[in-house]
Amino acid sequence: TVEMELESIEKGGFEHFMLKEIYEQPKSIGDCMRGRLNVGTSHIQLGGLINHLDKLSKAKRIIFVACGTSWHAGLVGEYLFEELARINVEVEYASEFRYRNPIIKEGDFVIAISQSGETADTMAALELAKQRGATILGICNVVGSSISRLTEAGVYTHAGPEIGVASTKAFTAQVTVLAMIAIATAKQKGTITDDVYRRLLSELAAIPTKIEDILADVDEIKDIAKLFTFASNFIFLGRGINFPVALEGALKLKEISYIHAEGYPAAEMKHGPIALIDEDMPVVFIATKDSTYDKVVSNIQEVKARKGRVIAVINKGDETLKSMVDFAIEIPESHEMVSPLLTSVPLQLLSYYIAVLRGRNVDQPRNLAKSVTVE
Amino acid sequence: TVEMELESIEKGGFEHFMLKEIYEQPKSIGDCMRGRLNVGTSHIQLGGLINHLDKLSKAKRIIFVACGTSWHAGLVGEYLFEELARINVEVEYASEFRYRNPIIKEGDFVIAISQSGETADTMAALELAKQRGATILGICNVVGSSISRLTEAGVYTHAGPEIGVASTKAFTAQVTVLAMIAIATAKQKGTITDDVYRRLLSELAAIPTKIEDILADVDEIKDIAKLFTFASNFIFLGRGINFPVALEGALKLKEISYIHAEGYPAAEMKHGPIALIDEDMPVVFIATKDSTYDKVVSNIQEVKARKGRVIAVINKGDETLKSMVDFAIEIPESHEMVSPLLTSVPLQLLSYYIAVLRGRNVDQPRNLAKSVTVE
Repeated sequence: TVEMELESIEKGGFEHFMLKEIYEQPKSIGDCMRGRLNVGTSHIQLGGLINHLDKLSKAKRIIFVACGTSWHAGLVGEYLFEELARINVEVEYASEFRYRNPIIKEGDFVIAISQSGETADTMAALELAKQRGATILGICNVVGSSISRLTEAGVYTHAGPEIGVASTKAFTAQVTVLAMIAIATAKQKGTITDDVYRRLLSELAAIPTKIEDILADVDEIKDIAKLFTFASNFIFLGRGINFPVALEGALKLKEISYIHAEGYPAAEMKHGPIALIDEDMPVVFIATKDSTYDKVVSNIQEVKARKGRVIAVINKGDETLKSMVDFAIEIPESHEMVSPLLTSVPLQLLSYYIAVLRGRNVDQPRNLAKSVTVE
Repeated sequence: TVEMELESIEKGGFEHFMLKEIYEQPKSIGDCMRGRLNVGTSHIQLGGLINHLDKLSKAKRIIFVACGTSWHAGLVGEYLFEELARINVEVEYASEFRYRNPIIKEGDFVIAISQSGETADTMAALELAKQRGATILGICNVVGSSISRLTEAGVYTHAGPEIGVASTKAFTAQVTVLAMIAIATAKQKGTITDDVYRRLLSELAAIPTKIEDILADVDEIKDIAKLFTFASNFIFLGRGINFPVALEGALKLKEISYIHAEGYPAAEMKHGPIALIDEDMPVVFIATKDSTYDKVVSNIQEVKARKGRVIAVINKGDETLKSMVDFAIEIPESHEMVSPLLTSVPLQLLSYYIAVLRGRNVDQPRNLAKSVTVE
């Protein structure tokens, strides 16, 4: 039919929208940075925030309100803003924030993160924050959406339309925007040196090429997907800024494969979840070379000692870990603060290939809507 | 052997220490309040905090650092302190807090929660907070433990020795202490009326009797445990102050039955996890009559519409929910702010009976230690 042909054209040769959108990420992240980040002139300019950056750099506290994948982007934002701009951050489930009696003080910023810009709970949380006198900003993908109209200012993610219900390129664009705002705020505030500032700009600018590198060879990920197609459970572990990536990796797998996957900060395993580990439990670690690398390695050893099967996202050339784990997915090195933009990509692919092998409706998983406009 | 006989005496007629400790809760919570809370004279007096209460009532921010079950108690504390004393609270995984570069400002309190008082990550987090100039307090069960010696002041939970590796009575005692501190702080600060203050004191004082009431009839819980003995997954959902109870309920089941159970704020279901729901997925709701009751009811309807099997902790006499859900566990009504002390008890029992039916070593689950003194 004409409709089917149209859809096939829209998918641009990919079997599913989700796969197309995963592969679009070098371009969508590039689009997100275009005209905003200039490595040559060492400049970040975010049009939507020009009049707010000074105030933001003096913020007492930033509260991110969001749901689902956007909430995970908010958690990455927490690490970015606290580490670089030295501003206290809280990340709230919009549904929890709105039914509490939140404490908002002068100088507080409430920033909503939503792909559609129509998420009902996030809208309501924002309206409440506005009534209480917070400065409200938005990070949305859909231009002209309700949240973008409600907020005083904001930054669009410019990831282009996302059709797959499970968010991929919208997530990485949200993280890119958060990184740009955090870096610009830190520069304004003087909490990072010029050297670190320039290093971060060039690291961010290098992300699209590094993602292309990951996408160029996905054979290992496909092999892992084949071996674990019929796993009934999965655990995802990370630390620091990659802890939210573990949560997001687990959510992707839940959404499209219906496998019960759960994310945890790696050190929490010992406080309960490690009881789940046996030879049937695949455990995915994000184990790139960053400030908590040694700690993650010892968490991997603990899981191996209990016969768990370890899949690890590691940096290229990390022979130590490669020989320690059962399956290694190698990605390029990067600055820790922008690493979630790389570590999240193989996890998206892993979920995708597992779901396809299980015969799931990847673009339209059961029970889920793309934009949750009801409470 | 003599050793076995001794153990049998120590278990006081119960099959396991865990069951004994669950049944001790009316007494352990009573012990925790004894000499501290006086309903007749409308008084809360916490010896360990006498010289700190005024300063605490002026705190800019409270950060709870903890791991595992104690981290869940901290989340309950967040709802208590924000709602009653109007102080901003953050709850941090100790393992994440210590490896970041946490932002500590003057007037910040860092409160460690740890049953043993020896948890390595929590100790390290506290030491870091102390170096940065925070006022550090402790909520521990073991008298004279390392954390209690490191802190400037604190409140013991007085729950008595806890032998079962999965924490039960220590958790409810932690919540009791947090409630007492939050109420005393709110009174000092004037953020609650005298009426509310007196109401909260009498509601707290009534908890032990209400728990006795729950423990007096556990047939329904045993029946549910029989039906779901061989479930491979579970989801636990709650909202507001009972969201952390959902997390804790899931953790208990993980720890002792090795069933993959996960907790979520109920409203987040629509943002991904609801894809997991089919007729094989038991979903436990905490659905007591509180400020988010109507919202929880509609979340229950969403799960029912996807053929999920719903077990709900409801208030006695709630015929509407009783007829809507598959299995109802009825508990007495209470003030929302102290309700976690009741709602957590049937979830402890559910985990216990499931684990026993699965033939697990309830008191010594695999891979777990009572006190995590390594990083």
